[in-house]
Amino acid sequence: MDPSDDPRPGETVLDAPIQNQAALQFIGRIRTPFATRRECPRQGSLDGPECQIEVEARFEPALQGLEPGVLIEVLYWLDRARRDLLTQSPRSDGNARGTFALRSPVRPNPIGTAVVKLVACDGPVLTVQGLDCLDDTPLLDIKPDRRGYCVQAPPKA
Amino acid sequence: MDPSDDPRPGETVLDAPIQNQAALQFIGRIRTPFATRRECPRQGSLDGPECQIEVEARFEPALQGLEPGVLIEVLYWLDRARRDLLTQSPRSDGNARGTFALRSPVRPNPIGTAVVKLVACDGPVLTVQGLDCLDDTPLLDIKPDRRGYCVQAPPKA
Repeated sequence: MDPSDDPRPGETVLDAPIQNQAALQFIGRIRTPFATRRECPRQGSLDGPECQIEVEARFEPALQGLEPGVLIEVLYWLDRARRDLLTQSPRSDGNARGTFALRSPVRPNPIGTAVVKLVACDGPVLTVQGLDCLDDTPLLDIKPDRRGYCVQAPPKA
Repeated sequence: MDPSDDPRPGETVLDAPIQNQAALQFIGRIRTPFATRRECPRQGSLDGPECQIEVEARFEPALQGLEPGVLIEVLYWLDRARRDLLTQSPRSDGNARGTFALRSPVRPNPIGTAVVKLVACDGPVLTVQGLDCLDDTPLLDIKPDRRGYCVQAPPKA
């Protein structure tokens, strides 16, 4: 955490240790042009800069069937975010509101989600557009976007 | 895991222990009418059954600012899913493809995401429509839907 992560006026901090109720494993790393949180756009854009998702070699078989051109949902671990703010004052307006009413990286379980365009697949490396996270962010999951998925999958019998 | 979770023909299993690289804490529980995976719809519908999200009391302040009528993104831990399949054969078609090309609950980090309609807020209990997960699923996070969020938040300076 850098000093700019100190609570601002009006913010509420949860004074309790983080419990360990489930274990996450990192399945790769995300490469973006954003080295600091200030450089990250508030929200990724499908015509934003190309970024790389580097999937660990052992998970490469799990990429079978992903094709360039589709939208994918990417989940990642916001490893540089504090986890104890219940209310937050966004820098943009200074009005404190609940963490669950914000898409701030600061949250009890700092998991980021983004819907991005899959531009290219080169073995375990995916090139995508639409990310807004810091460079070197740990990767948690990749899923087809739920809207695309509606079309592919027939209703359950 | 129940026996129906055994690998099917054509599926690929990762033979490696799950690493513990980040700790998740459960922030509540989800109540749905779906007691078994067979009962779960393939995908939730915004006019589906009303379900309850029970947020732990200590996290209630983090709900400030959420109002009925909005779309929210819900993240949850698919605690009854195996985590070691690299390729899977969906029951619906039997063609094996990569886990990351499927929205199956079985994945290296079994985090489910859903966009749901917030119908009512009653203290720490939210009533929503659009979930497809099992009853008693652990809750990980709630965020405003990214599409709604575009409108609220001005571009970063």
